[in-house]
Amino acid sequence: MTVVKSPLPEPARQVTYDALQSTLVDLLGISLIGKQAHWNIVGPRFRSVHLQLDEVVTAARSFADTVAERAAALGLPPDGRPETIASAFTLPAPKDGWLRDEDVVEVIAETLGAAIGRLRERIEATEQADPVSQDLLISVTAELEKQRWMFEAENWPRES
Amino acid sequence: MTVVKSPLPEPARQVTYDALQSTLVDLLGISLIGKQAHWNIVGPRFRSVHLQLDEVVTAARSFADTVAERAAALGLPPDGRPETIASAFTLPAPKDGWLRDEDVVEVIAETLGAAIGRLRERIEATEQADPVSQDLLISVTAELEKQRWMFEAENWPRES
Amino acid sequence: MTVVKSPLPEPARQVTYDALQSTLVDLLGISLIGKQAHWNIVGPRFRSVHLQLDEVVTAARSFADTVAERAAALGLPPDGRPETIASAFTLPAPKDGWLRDEDVVEVIAETLGAAIGRLRERIEATEQADPVSQDLLISVTAELEKQRWMFEAENWPRES
Amino acid sequence: MTVVKSPLPEPARQVTYDALQSTLVDLLGISLIGKQAHWNIVGPRFRSVHLQLDEVVTAARSFADTVAERAAALGLPPDGRPETIASAFTLPAPKDGWLRDEDVVEVIAETLGAAIGRLRERIEATEQADPVSQDLLISVTAELEKQRWMFEAENWPRES
Amino acid sequence: MTVVKSPLPEPARQVTYDALQSTLVDLLGISLIGKQAHWNIVGPRFRSVHLQLDEVVTAARSFADTVAERAAALGLPPDGRPETIASAFTLPAPKDGWLRDEDVVEVIAETLGAAIGRLRERIEATEQADPVSQDLLISVTAELEKQRWMFEAENWPRES
Amino acid sequence: MTVVKSPLPEPARQVTYDALQSTLVDLLGISLIGKQAHWNIVGPRFRSVHLQLDEVVTAARSFADTVAERAAALGLPPDGRPETIASAFTLPAPKDGWLRDEDVVEVIAETLGAAIGRLRERIEATEQADPVSQDLLISVTAELEKQRWMFEAENWPRES
Amino acid sequence: MTVVKSPLPEPARQVTYDALQSTLVDLLGISLIGKQAHWNIVGPRFRSVHLQLDEVVTAARSFADTVAERAAALGLPPDGRPETIASAFTLPAPKDGWLRDEDVVEVIAETLGAAIGRLRERIEATEQADPVSQDLLISVTAELEKQRWMFEAENWPRES
Amino acid sequence: MTVVKSPLPEPARQVTYDALQSTLVDLLGISLIGKQAHWNIVGPRFRSVHLQLDEVVTAARSFADTVAERAAALGLPPDGRPETIASAFTLPAPKDGWLRDEDVVEVIAETLGAAIGRLRERIEATEQADPVSQDLLISVTAELEKQRWMFEAENWPRES
Amino acid sequence: MTVVKSPLPEPARQVTYDALQSTLVDLLGISLIGKQAHWNIVGPRFRSVHLQLDEVVTAARSFADTVAERAAALGLPPDGRPETIASAFTLPAPKDGWLRDEDVVEVIAETLGAAIGRLRERIEATEQADPVSQDLLISVTAELEKQRWMFEAENWPRES
Amino acid sequence: MTVVKSPLPEPARQVTYDALQSTLVDLLGISLIGKQAHWNIVGPRFRSVHLQLDEVVTAARSFADTVAERAAALGLPPDGRPETIASAFTLPAPKDGWLRDEDVVEVIAETLGAAIGRLRERIEATEQADPVSQDLLISVTAELEKQRWMFEAENWPRES
Amino acid sequence: MTVVKSPLPEPARQVTYDALQSTLVDLLGISLIGKQAHWNIVGPRFRSVHLQLDEVVTAARSFADTVAERAAALGLPPDGRPETIASAFTLPAPKDGWLRDEDVVEVIAETLGAAIGRLRERIEATEQADPVSQDLLISVTAELEKQRWMFEAENWPRES
Amino acid sequence: MTVVKSPLPEPARQVTYDALQSTLVDLLGISLIGKQAHWNIVGPRFRSVHLQLDEVVTAARSFADTVAERAAALGLPPDGRPETIASAFTLPAPKDGWLRDEDVVEVIAETLGAAIGRLRERIEATEQADPVSQDLLISVTAELEKQRWMFEAENWPRES
Repeated sequence: MTVVKSPLPEPARQVTYDALQSTLVDLLGISLIGKQAHWNIVGPRFRSVHLQLDEVVTAARSFADTVAERAAALGLPPDGRPETIASAFTLPAPKDGWLRDEDVVEVIAETLGAAIGRLRERIEATEQADPVSQDLLISVTAELEKQRWMFEAENWPRES
Repeated sequence: MTVVKSPLPEPARQVTYDALQSTLVDLLGISLIGKQAHWNIVGPRFRSVHLQLDEVVTAARSFADTVAERAAALGLPPDGRPETIASAFTLPAPKDGWLRDEDVVEVIAETLGAAIGRLRERIEATEQADPVSQDLLISVTAELEKQRWMFEAENWPRES
Repeated sequence: MTVVKSPLPEPARQVTYDALQSTLVDLLGISLIGKQAHWNIVGPRFRSVHLQLDEVVTAARSFADTVAERAAALGLPPDGRPETIASAFTLPAPKDGWLRDEDVVEVIAETLGAAIGRLRERIEATEQADPVSQDLLISVTAELEKQRWMFEAENWPRES
Repeated sequence: MTVVKSPLPEPARQVTYDALQSTLVDLLGISLIGKQAHWNIVGPRFRSVHLQLDEVVTAARSFADTVAERAAALGLPPDGRPETIASAFTLPAPKDGWLRDEDVVEVIAETLGAAIGRLRERIEATEQADPVSQDLLISVTAELEKQRWMFEAENWPRES
Repeated sequence: MTVVKSPLPEPARQVTYDALQSTLVDLLGISLIGKQAHWNIVGPRFRSVHLQLDEVVTAARSFADTVAERAAALGLPPDGRPETIASAFTLPAPKDGWLRDEDVVEVIAETLGAAIGRLRERIEATEQADPVSQDLLISVTAELEKQRWMFEAENWPRES
Repeated sequence: MTVVKSPLPEPARQVTYDALQSTLVDLLGISLIGKQAHWNIVGPRFRSVHLQLDEVVTAARSFADTVAERAAALGLPPDGRPETIASAFTLPAPKDGWLRDEDVVEVIAETLGAAIGRLRERIEATEQADPVSQDLLISVTAELEKQRWMFEAENWPRES
Repeated sequence: MTVVKSPLPEPARQVTYDALQSTLVDLLGISLIGKQAHWNIVGPRFRSVHLQLDEVVTAARSFADTVAERAAALGLPPDGRPETIASAFTLPAPKDGWLRDEDVVEVIAETLGAAIGRLRERIEATEQADPVSQDLLISVTAELEKQRWMFEAENWPRES
Repeated sequence: MTVVKSPLPEPARQVTYDALQSTLVDLLGISLIGKQAHWNIVGPRFRSVHLQLDEVVTAARSFADTVAERAAALGLPPDGRPETIASAFTLPAPKDGWLRDEDVVEVIAETLGAAIGRLRERIEATEQADPVSQDLLISVTAELEKQRWMFEAENWPRES
Repeated sequence: MTVVKSPLPEPARQVTYDALQSTLVDLLGISLIGKQAHWNIVGPRFRSVHLQLDEVVTAARSFADTVAERAAALGLPPDGRPETIASAFTLPAPKDGWLRDEDVVEVIAETLGAAIGRLRERIEATEQADPVSQDLLISVTAELEKQRWMFEAENWPRES
Repeated sequence: MTVVKSPLPEPARQVTYDALQSTLVDLLGISLIGKQAHWNIVGPRFRSVHLQLDEVVTAARSFADTVAERAAALGLPPDGRPETIASAFTLPAPKDGWLRDEDVVEVIAETLGAAIGRLRERIEATEQADPVSQDLLISVTAELEKQRWMFEAENWPRES
Repeated sequence: MTVVKSPLPEPARQVTYDALQSTLVDLLGISLIGKQAHWNIVGPRFRSVHLQLDEVVTAARSFADTVAERAAALGLPPDGRPETIASAFTLPAPKDGWLRDEDVVEVIAETLGAAIGRLRERIEATEQADPVSQDLLISVTAELEKQRWMFEAENWPRES
Repeated sequence: MTVVKSPLPEPARQVTYDALQSTLVDLLGISLIGKQAHWNIVGPRFRSVHLQLDEVVTAARSFADTVAERAAALGLPPDGRPETIASAFTLPAPKDGWLRDEDVVEVIAETLGAAIGRLRERIEATEQADPVSQDLLISVTAELEKQRWMFEAENWPRES
């Protein structure tokens, strides 16, 4: 029985759903590890990075909500439960315990870089399937690329 | 004599204008029947659906303005007069008199579903003609699909 | 079967309802043609009148809502559907296509003038029937007369 | 000895004062029983009616303040003490203990209906005595009739 | 030659205009002498009355604007020039130089009391001529009576 | 039959409920007599005390809501009906009619002083029964003691 | 007997007071004639100039308050009563009755020009007497010169 | 090596940390499953519960932040990574896929009820160890008990 | 050595960068000449166009920031120095000195028209290279086309 | 070694610094004794003066910050430590313990009067040395003279 | 003679007063030295720590006000005069003159650490004497411990 | 032909105009190079300086507007076109490409230092010519000196 009728036919619906569901997991994961770093960071740049991380978390939470509701609007239920995130989230992440500020900057730049790479594949995948969802994924990418640049800029010249 | 010069050549201009003008009629019509339902709904879910309808109306009015101004920016005047809406608006709509809450939920879900079907055709039609207008139609679709999902979810399990 | 019980006895209820329903049509019509002019106006005074028209539309929409909900509160359902407005709205209105700024100022002054004339009759009609509705019609009239004055002032010295 | 001089002569002053004082008691009583229902309601519509009741309470409190200060402005002190409300408030009211949502909707619709009937008599009584106070009572009536309609609409089809 | 067409026929127009023009003078005068007292008051109650006077001034200025624009909307130009106020304003007013707080309270209570007496005559005069203007004058009276009560209450027990 | 399950076992639940229900009555009573004084006060300090009383009323209303919802959260329905307040409210209160400013200051200081004495007993009573409710009662006491101090300070040197 | 002690010795006090008192009259006069023009203007530029005049009035009222309170702070009471303004205000001003938009622009430019000329003399006069008051007069001049420029710019090319 | 010095001695530090860390997991888990239900709920009460769940999520996120920063302030790093939540979160939770509104209400009431039971144990445990952390846990409990009551009230009479 | 790593491979990176850098120059140039016209405009439409130009400047500045940060996010540094703008900005622009209002309207319409033509080429150029940057350029175009329409409408019937 | 380079040459720098540092001490001292009086005042005017003192404190704190940062901008570090204020602050101040309202008004008027006298000397001293700092001192004086006037006005007729 | 009656009996009153008075001194001292460091800090982390210090100052000022008013509410006057702070404030503090950013971070962490140690003793001391004051001291401690953690985190790894 | 009449006679007008026009160029140049640095900065202090630069840009833009409108008010048109800035702006500025954070801090401190030196000469030049413009230049200087101090403080100890 159909609960919410989908405006998309198969197979476009499944393609789009896959892109949205995996983006949802990435964004929820980023929001959790962003907070983890926000709480555990130490070092001379504590305050600056502590605040910057909250902007990442706020963006990730807001887009996670939009992405999940887009999946629901397609007639397929999104999955953001703890166990789903734990098993499906594979982006680089900080370890537990106190974290040095320079390590936080580096790992978050990597997390965002990896997330962007996956998003660009999904943008391509949804171009034919659903331009409405593609437009949302483009917005997510624009925001994460902006956030990534700022951590990259802050990471310099370490990675030279 | 040209009044407002168009940034688009023919036939792209006409294709785009047709998509925008028919979207304008749909949005203005939705704003009127949304208010009609907002005023005439009765039943235990009165307050919840009464408020929800105002969000549909607000979204429809705001996008109608953007769509009409986009047409003007293309150098062709939009038409949103009462007689134009009355003759050109063909989406499902509530009847006059008091309306049962469950009937309102069902008909608005149908109205939005039909509007979305037409919008998706226009997105395709404007892809080559004017990507700027296409981007606007994608935004309208994303919003209406979100609104439709919420009425669909609320309509369940009636339509099973 | 009564759906919403009325606080007014007959024939006061019908008299009041007639006044409110015809005011609703006038206000919704004004909101539509106000936007029509807002989008299609051209000429040196474009920006000034473009903004002024949005104030008329905002006032008309807001009072339309209050008037319709007043009718509902009287136990009789208001009717603001597209076809109802198209058939019942008889005030002067701008034609389609681009509109010269001075013509817009003139026609809107006429629209408002005609609406006011009809409102003053309804104020008289409802004095005994329902002073609460009368008070609302007085507020509508005060606002429309203020708006009309500004278009009149702006129209001068053309009509001399 | 006169404390605050009155702008009204006798007997207009007493007529107006009686109308205001009894309206004050009704409004304070509504604000108290509205909160009582707000706290004790249970059932599937809990949240919707819980919030709706707070709007009734806010309106009743605000108008109670205006009405009482109007009485003071007439040179006669208003009385809103607990014992006065307890003895003079005679509108239908919910009982103590948990309240089913559908019962709350029904009793509040009755409370507001009874209050409106009394207000309409006072509007008539103050027409000659004090048009300024009459105007205030008209405003109170308009608001309570709007609130009553919403509970009536929500009460349907129970009372059929 | 008519500049702004009037929605009122003669003699209603003139009756209404007289009521509005004299109310305008009273309100502008009150706004000026309110500020005069605001600046020159001395005594233990300085701060309290200093702030209270600004509320009178704000109300008077706001209503003066509404009253003057109402006259313009009737097609007759309002007159609020310095010389007009100086010659037509006859309400009690504070003298120049420093003013004792208790004297300020007393004279402003008298000013407002006299203004109210004149407003109540105009409410009666405009009842047939223009209920829309009458409604505005009722609002002005309600506000001034509220302000007067507060000065009266503050003036006690001096006048016993 | 249980309507709302309680997180507290007996007898802690009853002890806590008694403390909350009697606090609710005290706060609702204070909100009513605070308004009574707000409307009826006269004297040179009218404005200052008139405004101060509204702060007491706002605090009392806000805490009454929190306290009543806390009782509901404990699974026992709060009672704030007019007759309950009238019979259970025993704190000092102003009489009816006009009230001299200095008498208002004195009686409200006494009302708050008596309320505080009772609250401190309830803080002790709930320490074991429910530290969550105790924390709420401590907040209420802190606010009322702050308000009381200000009336005490203002009452000096009368009571010497 | 001194009421408010002055921080300035004679003759600086009198020099400064003269500058402030005459500035007060000019600013109050400008606020009154600005409103007069705001209400009576007619012509195609009605809306634009109508709004612009309110900015002049707002600035004039705000500076009038600051200037008057500055005089009070110097220990000499300011005088802003209707009769004082009527007799001491000598700047160019609009006549009564409807005013053509282009005439309004011209006369207000002249009013502001004349006011500025007088202010510049007072800036010089207060340089030694009281640099604090001089600083205030410089602020007034800066604002009026900005306002005058805008009317001058709008007046072009009439005065060529 | 100590990174952040602790204001608490052992063993109070560890006791408090355990209480905070497990509360953190519960709150983050609630925020995730609250969103899961927010997105997947269907049924006639969709809108009402959809909005209510966002209030739970907002409260849970805000307290999670406060609790985690409290742990950091104690000199021991909090752990809110996805894998930690997935393994340590044991409260009742909704399953994946669409969720019926009545089931959502029931399971969230259970989730909150279980969370509260655990919090009350931690309140007791931290009383001696750290009254500052205890105070925070009391605030968390008060909020969750309020939220639980509302779901309980909404769940009635199902569980009878 | 790479400073900020790019999410784009060559040659897409260079193509996108060229589009962004030239858009940045156009937007910064528009913001400067928009202010130039804002300050130097004279004529009867001064106020209306003066305000309209500030909206163009605000939009241009805001998009310039987004475009420049997008270039940085691509790993290539944007260049917005004075000498770069002066040499690379080639859109039509107002001359120095006072500017007649009608000339300002005409030249700004031309500036925006020329900018739009260049933007549409860049939209095409970035379609394959970077859909994220393309989406940004579409937004810039939509805004500038809206602004251009308003100047076009205001320019009529001069260009006939 | 120079830490922050100064834009001023010697001896202007030292002259200006002396003026700023002593103003800083006066303002910080006023903010402390203003709070002291705010907390300890008793008497019938408690509330009025209690609030007025907070405005003095807010102004003093805000200007202290500006003055101190101005000193830093001159390349010389400001000193606002407790022991510096205690030894350098020599303005009249209230004693410890409860303070009668009339005594507070008198002493604060004296404090402000003395501070103003010292500020006027510093205005003169900095005229050649640094007109930028002089402008700041003029602003401080204007504010303190306004505050002093209000306490003077409130102090009357005591000091006659 | 008692000025403000105390709700607490002896010796609880004195115990509580001692705790509050010494907390007041600590908080006022922190607010002064926080500003001192805010103004005099130099080094690469200037901006970050400069802003962070203002948050400490804001918190300290706000709590100082609450603590002092709590003492007044207990019937014993608080003492926050410059000489009292200078003699009673014994927490670590920065020296005068420019301050290196890393030294500021270290000394403020020490100041806050010392303040917290003293506060925890007062929490214990007031547990029996006055749970209302104890609750306030717990809030102060929670805030200062949060602030201290951030300086500690920022101080790492210097103190290793 | 004069377009905007000047309130200043020659040669004061030209002297003042020169001071304002060159200040305009400096401020517009600072706003452009501030953004250039805002976008291209890299290094550990990225975020802190990135945000700080936006405050410089905001201040520079706001003062540029005021300075240009001041010139217009003097009757001489300001010139802020790209080519004018490029040729007349001679302050130190960052090069193109990525910029190290420490280099940004140093160069912006130099830019502001040089701008201040030129402003101080203009303050002197306008003292006789136009005290109103001088007052504006003093405000600009105060703001830039405050901004410069913060970069100087942040630059330490590099330049030792």
